[in-house]
Amino acid sequence: MGEEVVLLDFWASPFGMRVRIALEGKGVKYEYKEEQLALMQKSPLLLQSNPVYKKIPVLIHNNKPICESLIILEYIDSVWNDKFPLLPSDPYQQAQARFWAGFSAKLYEFGKEIWMKKGGEQEKGKTELIEGLKLFEKELGEKPFFGGEAMGLVDVTLVPNFTWFYVYERCGNFSIEEECPKLMQWAKRCMEIDFVAKSLADRHKVYELVTKSKKNLGLE
Amino acid sequence: MGEEVVLLDFWASPFGMRVRIALEGKGVKYEYKEEQLALMQKSPLLLQSNPVYKKIPVLIHNNKPICESLIILEYIDSVWNDKFPLLPSDPYQQAQARFWAGFSAKLYEFGKEIWMKKGGEQEKGKTELIEGLKLFEKELGEKPFFGGEAMGLVDVTLVPNFTWFYVYERCGNFSIEEECPKLMQWAKRCMEIDFVAKSLADRHKVYELVTKSKKNLGLE
Repeated sequence: MGEEVVLLDFWASPFGMRVRIALEGKGVKYEYKEEQLALMQKSPLLLQSNPVYKKIPVLIHNNKPICESLIILEYIDSVWNDKFPLLPSDPYQQAQARFWAGFSAKLYEFGKEIWMKKGGEQEKGKTELIEGLKLFEKELGEKPFFGGEAMGLVDVTLVPNFTWFYVYERCGNFSIEEECPKLMQWAKRCMEIDFVAKSLADRHKVYELVTKSKKNLGLE
Repeated sequence: MGEEVVLLDFWASPFGMRVRIALEGKGVKYEYKEEQLALMQKSPLLLQSNPVYKKIPVLIHNNKPICESLIILEYIDSVWNDKFPLLPSDPYQQAQARFWAGFSAKLYEFGKEIWMKKGGEQEKGKTELIEGLKLFEKELGEKPFFGGEAMGLVDVTLVPNFTWFYVYERCGNFSIEEECPKLMQWAKRCMEIDFVAKSLADRHKVYELVTKSKKNLGLE
């Protein structure tokens, strides 16, 4: 085939990690290219591949760029459809999976309130995060994965958020495991899978990054 | 079949109009239920059907609710797949359509800056809106529709924004047609189609609504 698959990414991005999990789970070989988050330091390839948002992740498949993590996941699922299906085949189940996958991006927004803010705004972020996680816990129910017996789209989009939980817990001084024990069990179940474990960032390194970023942003 | 299709919507919502166009274009008979935007006035059916966001549009198909306009459009396209296809079949073309459909929601955000803000923030909104529309104009190129020879997903998601342009132009004191003449030609082409025309709100009524809302919000 001579296929060329390149991923423009940033190691600590939960949106990038989603794409890595999908590619690893599908067994797609790809070249990983690390990008910088500061606009001035973004590569010409990134700016040219995603001129509208100028953001990672971007998947470049045979020189064609695909932007936005959820759109990339749908693309990967369509093109490499021989194993690790992300979307169910029933249209209603598809819609439900897309809904929860879309909602998982909100958790990252709530998390930002926790590590970037203080006082009342931080408390609001904590409440919203916990409420959001409890909705996911309810949606999971007694299933081992959101996808049922195996990981699917929602599992892939949600699990990267867990690499940021250590940041939230330390900055917000609370325990997510106490609030959502079943969801933490689910996360551990996912992270035991090889192709998930190798796609995720180290939570202590993410915490170091956040500590540095807070200094740079004048938040400490 | 005895199919029951209900749409929870608000007449001036561009996100609701998207769904109306898709249903009308597919020839799906549905019951339209008007909702109020104020949280206290939302119907129990809406709150129960979309407990996470509590927002219209919601499509209820045989008692099963589907939320989020883009997800609803994909659902409609999968279930009623005999005519008016929204998505192309090629995975890369699908990804491109989803990208531009996603971006069209941003225009509404930029528009809000124009009618809700003044001075520098309003100017920023105008610049962002025009830049966004020029990106769409470039993407359209010489094709009659974003979908090619017929309307597709991007056409359906973008054209409802045009019912709000009269608001933006009057509040921002500028002409969108002068800036993006080709895109306005495209919009007129869409609006000449019966099922589009009947799905869109009247721009003068939208302007009246905005004038009232601004008074209620204390913006006048």
